[in-house]
Amino acid sequence: MHAHGGSPDPLDRTRFPVDEWALRETRYSAEDLGVTETLFAVGNGYLGLRGNCEEGRDTHAHGTFVNGFHETWQIRHAEEAFGFARTGQTIVNAPDVKTIKLYVDDEPLLLSVADLEHYDRTLDFRDGVLRRSLIWRTASGKRVQVVSRRFTSLEHRHLAVMTFEVTMLDGDAPVAISSQLLNRQDGLDEYTTESLGAGDGTVGFDPRKASTLSERVLVPQSHWAGDRRMVLSWRAANSRMTLAVGVDHTISTDNEYETLTHAEEDLAKKVYRVRAQQGRPILVTKVAAYHSSRGVPTRELVDRCRRTLDRVREDGVEQCFASQRREMHAFWERSDVVVAGHPAVEQAVRWNLFQLAQSSLRVETAGIAAKGVSGSGYEGHYFWDSEIYVLPFLTYTSPWVARGALRFRHQMLPAARRRAYEMSQAGALFPWRTISGEEASAYYAAGTAQYHINADIAFALCKYVSGTGDEDFMVREGVEILVETARMWEDLGFWLAGKEPRFHIHGVTGPDEYTAVVNNNLFTNLMARDNLRQAAAWCRHIAEFWPEQYARLVKQLELEPGEVDEWARCADGMYVPYDEGLKVHPQDQHFLEREVWDLAATPEEKRPLLLHYHPLVIYRFQVLKQADVVAALFLQGDEFSREAKRADFEYYDPITTGDSSLSAVVQAIMAAEVGYQDLALRYFHAGLYVDLANLHGNASDGIHVASTGGVWSALVYGFGGMRDHNDALTFDPRLPRDWPSLSFKVRFHGARMRVLLKREQISFTIEEGAAVSVSVRGEQHLITPGAPVVIPLEDQGPVLEGALGTMPLIGSSTEHNMVYTAGVPDPDRRKKGNGNGNGSR
Amino acid sequence: MHAHGGSPDPLDRTRFPVDEWALRETRYSAEDLGVTETLFAVGNGYLGLRGNCEEGRDTHAHGTFVNGFHETWQIRHAEEAFGFARTGQTIVNAPDVKTIKLYVDDEPLLLSVADLEHYDRTLDFRDGVLRRSLIWRTASGKRVQVVSRRFTSLEHRHLAVMTFEVTMLDGDAPVAISSQLLNRQDGLDEYTTESLGAGDGTVGFDPRKASTLSERVLVPQSHWAGDRRMVLSWRAANSRMTLAVGVDHTISTDNEYETLTHAEEDLAKKVYRVRAQQGRPILVTKVAAYHSSRGVPTRELVDRCRRTLDRVREDGVEQCFASQRREMHAFWERSDVVVAGHPAVEQAVRWNLFQLAQSSLRVETAGIAAKGVSGSGYEGHYFWDSEIYVLPFLTYTSPWVARGALRFRHQMLPAARRRAYEMSQAGALFPWRTISGEEASAYYAAGTAQYHINADIAFALCKYVSGTGDEDFMVREGVEILVETARMWEDLGFWLAGKEPRFHIHGVTGPDEYTAVVNNNLFTNLMARDNLRQAAAWCRHIAEFWPEQYARLVKQLELEPGEVDEWARCADGMYVPYDEGLKVHPQDQHFLEREVWDLAATPEEKRPLLLHYHPLVIYRFQVLKQADVVAALFLQGDEFSREAKRADFEYYDPITTGDSSLSAVVQAIMAAEVGYQDLALRYFHAGLYVDLANLHGNASDGIHVASTGGVWSALVYGFGGMRDHNDALTFDPRLPRDWPSLSFKVRFHGARMRVLLKREQISFTIEEGAAVSVSVRGEQHLITPGAPVVIPLEDQGPVLEGALGTMPLIGSSTEHNMVYTAGVPDPDRRKKGNGNGNGSR
Repeated sequence: MHAHGGSPDPLDRTRFPVDEWALRETRYSAEDLGVTETLFAVGNGYLGLRGNCEEGRDTHAHGTFVNGFHETWQIRHAEEAFGFARTGQTIVNAPDVKTIKLYVDDEPLLLSVADLEHYDRTLDFRDGVLRRSLIWRTASGKRVQVVSRRFTSLEHRHLAVMTFEVTMLDGDAPVAISSQLLNRQDGLDEYTTESLGAGDGTVGFDPRKASTLSERVLVPQSHWAGDRRMVLSWRAANSRMTLAVGVDHTISTDNEYETLTHAEEDLAKKVYRVRAQQGRPILVTKVAAYHSSRGVPTRELVDRCRRTLDRVREDGVEQCFASQRREMHAFWERSDVVVAGHPAVEQAVRWNLFQLAQSSLRVETAGIAAKGVSGSGYEGHYFWDSEIYVLPFLTYTSPWVARGALRFRHQMLPAARRRAYEMSQAGALFPWRTISGEEASAYYAAGTAQYHINADIAFALCKYVSGTGDEDFMVREGVEILVETARMWEDLGFWLAGKEPRFHIHGVTGPDEYTAVVNNNLFTNLMARDNLRQAAAWCRHIAEFWPEQYARLVKQLELEPGEVDEWARCADGMYVPYDEGLKVHPQDQHFLEREVWDLAATPEEKRPLLLHYHPLVIYRFQVLKQADVVAALFLQGDEFSREAKRADFEYYDPITTGDSSLSAVVQAIMAAEVGYQDLALRYFHAGLYVDLANLHGNASDGIHVASTGGVWSALVYGFGGMRDHNDALTFDPRLPRDWPSLSFKVRFHGARMRVLLKREQISFTIEEGAAVSVSVRGEQHLITPGAPVVIPLEDQGPVLEGALGTMPLIGSSTEHNMVYTAGVPDPDRRKKGNGNGNGSR
Repeated sequence: MHAHGGSPDPLDRTRFPVDEWALRETRYSAEDLGVTETLFAVGNGYLGLRGNCEEGRDTHAHGTFVNGFHETWQIRHAEEAFGFARTGQTIVNAPDVKTIKLYVDDEPLLLSVADLEHYDRTLDFRDGVLRRSLIWRTASGKRVQVVSRRFTSLEHRHLAVMTFEVTMLDGDAPVAISSQLLNRQDGLDEYTTESLGAGDGTVGFDPRKASTLSERVLVPQSHWAGDRRMVLSWRAANSRMTLAVGVDHTISTDNEYETLTHAEEDLAKKVYRVRAQQGRPILVTKVAAYHSSRGVPTRELVDRCRRTLDRVREDGVEQCFASQRREMHAFWERSDVVVAGHPAVEQAVRWNLFQLAQSSLRVETAGIAAKGVSGSGYEGHYFWDSEIYVLPFLTYTSPWVARGALRFRHQMLPAARRRAYEMSQAGALFPWRTISGEEASAYYAAGTAQYHINADIAFALCKYVSGTGDEDFMVREGVEILVETARMWEDLGFWLAGKEPRFHIHGVTGPDEYTAVVNNNLFTNLMARDNLRQAAAWCRHIAEFWPEQYARLVKQLELEPGEVDEWARCADGMYVPYDEGLKVHPQDQHFLEREVWDLAATPEEKRPLLLHYHPLVIYRFQVLKQADVVAALFLQGDEFSREAKRADFEYYDPITTGDSSLSAVVQAIMAAEVGYQDLALRYFHAGLYVDLANLHGNASDGIHVASTGGVWSALVYGFGGMRDHNDALTFDPRLPRDWPSLSFKVRFHGARMRVLLKREQISFTIEEGAAVSVSVRGEQHLITPGAPVVIPLEDQGPVLEGALGTMPLIGSSTEHNMVYTAGVPDPDRRKKGNGNGNGSR
């Protein structure tokens, strides 16, 4: 897999052939195990198994993740200050059930050295199953066929199912199959190829990676193994969270065999010793159940595992495969996006959508982590990624999942209130990154200072309610989020006197982390204004139409007279920075006073900037990690004129590095809207292949969930031109020049609509539910069931040509540990010359 | 000791009687051991022994410090980023030689429970010796007189001398005296009363305290004990620094006695068992030598200890006492400041000056730490405190010591060049806090971002050269500092285009740590301008008058043509923020846009602010930890008009909390200059009693060296009205209303002058050396030896009355561990009300 600058197909097609419904690998390689383990991971939002090979060895890092199952640790700040985050939270690499080792003639199958006549690994998007099929020629020349399957169930979120079939193709042989349930103590065992230190005195670091828990995390609680079943349980040492894992094994074969069972604290295994005869398959079926809890005794979790396993035993494993196919079919029915005429792009699009399914569908009582359940990157934390990048997709395709994610935020309110108090603010302040609800960001300048998380959550909530009509949820729970976040904003900002007093918000960090702790960040102010407006509007609405519930709200939240009006007043008075000279919106009040970083003069090896420059250096310049004003142009698009959007986009795009994977998809949307259509496609590809082509060099830590959601947004909002301002669906499409058509699904107020965009027309078909009203380029249309509406299009919006877009498709094909490369290379160096683009000479 | 708001004498005089030449304690108390251990510490700049009692127990924290002897550790940032400080440096609590235990009738003397008939402890400023005398009535009713002395030698910097004399006053008794050389492993032993954790689940923290090294620091290298001598040696585990400690014991008595000697890795002791007869004294003399090194083998250090001890053995201990008195006499001859008519104030003044002597006189190859050698606060680090607060005193009283401190900075240049490179800057960037020369500040916003350290060092260098005429030092070494710091400024700043292009410096933190990472901090810009100007002026001067040396400089520093002119251009173009509306200089470009913190509404228990509010909250407001613009008004006083000084002072004084001990003395100087003379005296007292009255609640961590230096500055610059702008000495005095007179010494270009300020006149007398030219209120006078000049004064400057100065004498008399007091008090709290002074309602 190589990253070609801007090329639409950066995958090595001799190894990963194009398949619109699957990610296929036809040749084994040990070169990029970390990446392929991420790409071939299976998950359901609750349970995730990385794409490690069954044989255990030959791995970058084993990974099994249970959403929200984390360990805590005391953050030790090198210099402490009041209010700094205190409790570190790290997702636990859970005990592994993937490992099934194979021995033929006592010789182990090791993919890295095996003579493979055939190898095929396929992650099928239609049924959600990972299949591998290979023919192994052993050292003694015997050919062995191995076929395996693996998935995590969408029907039963606690369940993983595996099958492992071995057939001697020529000749007989003793075959041993050793299937394990193994607690590796957080991924560190003799099998790992992951280096734990550069070993050359340098300290490797990448702030985007998880910190390592240094002490034993999982304390064994019980272990048991019977004839067909084994169950082990643990408790996390500090967080006291509990976990039980149960595994059922069955074997089906005409060969003679014997069985050995073993169980101890961190390991249970089932070994089948088979006298395998040519042509007589050996089929081992392995069914695993994971149950976790914040505090329920493991005894109880062990029982839950038994019940889950019993149900599968009754129904049979093939029923599980069937239900998985049904669930995936339903997912595609409501979520598929089709780019006609570009099968490679279509494959990548579906891979991204499939990741959204894997990361979210059965999350339920937890959040959607930045890596889903596919890796330990960012320590398994939940950020604004879920609200701004994933929830739009869910709201318009699987709204009940969006609702669950929002309810999870609602349950976080008590912790957010405590955090607000600690930060000397009223209302509630959601943590920038967290699992448990406590702030876990140890670097406040790019963490706690991102107060906009409050508005992001409120924003997603309001979009959910306006897209679904689920007013009941807003009245019963959601509005509490609006009230408490609005209170925080009203308290955080202040009125600056003047001819026209304005409401200012100082000392915050916007989405772009290449500036920090600024005054009046445009994104923050606009999102806060929306937050305040929505809180006021919903409170007034509930007071009018749901008087009983409003009375409860007043009592419960101690809502004071005048508070609601005050929010509206703050919103109306919100300061919006604008530079009359340049005719652009400054990213923050003083952004334009900074020097402009000379990206053209910054060598490739100095990127991403965050790994090569001290924050103080980066913060001093006009240079962006990710879209910030441009993100506001999208999310608060109805607040900007067409001209302002273009001016802002043209100003910010050339100084945006895209060092964050959250950037390209937003840039794609706004490039499309203002008319840079080729550039939009380039950015779309930069988002589409973030993981598939490992564009940021860290796909081995897990998928980039925000980017996968952003791919959907870029398709639907960007090219489809959909907007959802003011509770209405509008369309102003931007079909890429060489795309024959684009189709996608949108669920709105319970109805499901298929949108088909072609060069000369856009059509809407109700597939499910009642009529939907849409507006296309200002004209209103009512789409009724059974009566598709076709609307002709004169063009696909303005088309601007220009040499914007300096963001390369960064990263490289090989995984690398990012280490200090600047450091202290030359003690005698006296003069500058390290290309930081300082324009002072 | 109680802190009375503004009261001139906050000491409990029943316990600490007034004595102009000593700090005396006439009653033992275990209530404030941490404070008195600091107040009664002895040191010489190289070696410091805290004022622990000889008996070992009954202590807050044992402390023995060797300047620069430190351990290193890897700083683990909870979130890492490029260029963050990596190597922590912590001064080691060195092995203790103070302990001499006494047993009478096998009963130990324990001060906390002993029946003391008499107790007197005196730190004598004239001879630098700590004496203690007590009469103990044992449980069996016998009266025992114990007299001890202790000092660290100013003649032999490696030497500490102790005597311990026991006399049975009535009756005989078996007496045991156990004298120890003990490595307590960094202060933690069974004797300590210091709590290591609150134990209630809260995490106590005070960012001003040293972090604890968790592993064994000192690795034993050798131990040896002979008849009279014992020598132990260690190596620090990580820093590889080495240390040897040797002790000689002698006993002198007419009683019968036997001797036991014991030595092991971390302990050597000499026990005298004496059949003590009434009235026959037992005198034990203990002489200790400390030798440390960055890497010399301990064998060699052991030899050095032997040589030091041999010399004392030859000369006799009483000669050491005599030399100590001589050295102190010489110190007072050149440094004494006399406030007539106020013996209590005079005592406190001398205590502060004595601390300056103890912290600096024999520093030599090291720096002057924030706590001198009196405690482990701030981990033994060197900050700008030495250059801005201590070097003025040294330059004008002991210039050779100032020279040593500046040479130490010169030796730090290679590390500062590496740091500049790491920070993407040209030239050299001195570390904000360090021992080894590497940046040790783990919180960059109030550390690395204080780029002004570069200018502070250049400033002190230039003042030293202009005050001493030591041009040779400037030409040979000093100018390299000027060149490299000027390069850093030129590279850090940039030209902002406009009608009149200006040189801007963005993203720095000034002295006031209650705002951070701002643009165009006034203090920084003015100090940088001075730095650039001085570098250009000195380079031109050397080029003209020292052509050979200039050629060497050009070659060695790769000085390029035009570079010097460019510095001058940057200096001339330096942006100086000024607000035409308010007629004040903003602390930084956007300071006045912030909300004003309502200090009047901030409850006392919420102070100091840094222990009760998150930095993000504090940074958002106009509120100061310490003087910033006001410090610039003093240091760059010739750059401001009289009106500007008054306007700025009146603006900033009411929003300055004085939460830093560096603030009050500067506020005193400028209050005096602009005319708030009563307020000046209040601030002077706030500085004078920082440690003596434990005004900041942390005197137990060691003395506040900057404040002690600031006391001298407040006397000489503040009340004496001396200024040293443009290489000239000028005077515009401000004698406090109820002070009959003030006299002080000033050494200038080798001559020593006594200045005597009275209400109606100021007089100058040359005590040593040649003539000195001074200007008094604009009129020039030549003071020649043997011809004192008396100049009549009409007044003591303007006198303004006003209710400025909201800074209380904060802190309290009892030591307390500062713990989270806000935290999470009320999970159900929903509305604000924690008095953060948010003025938005």
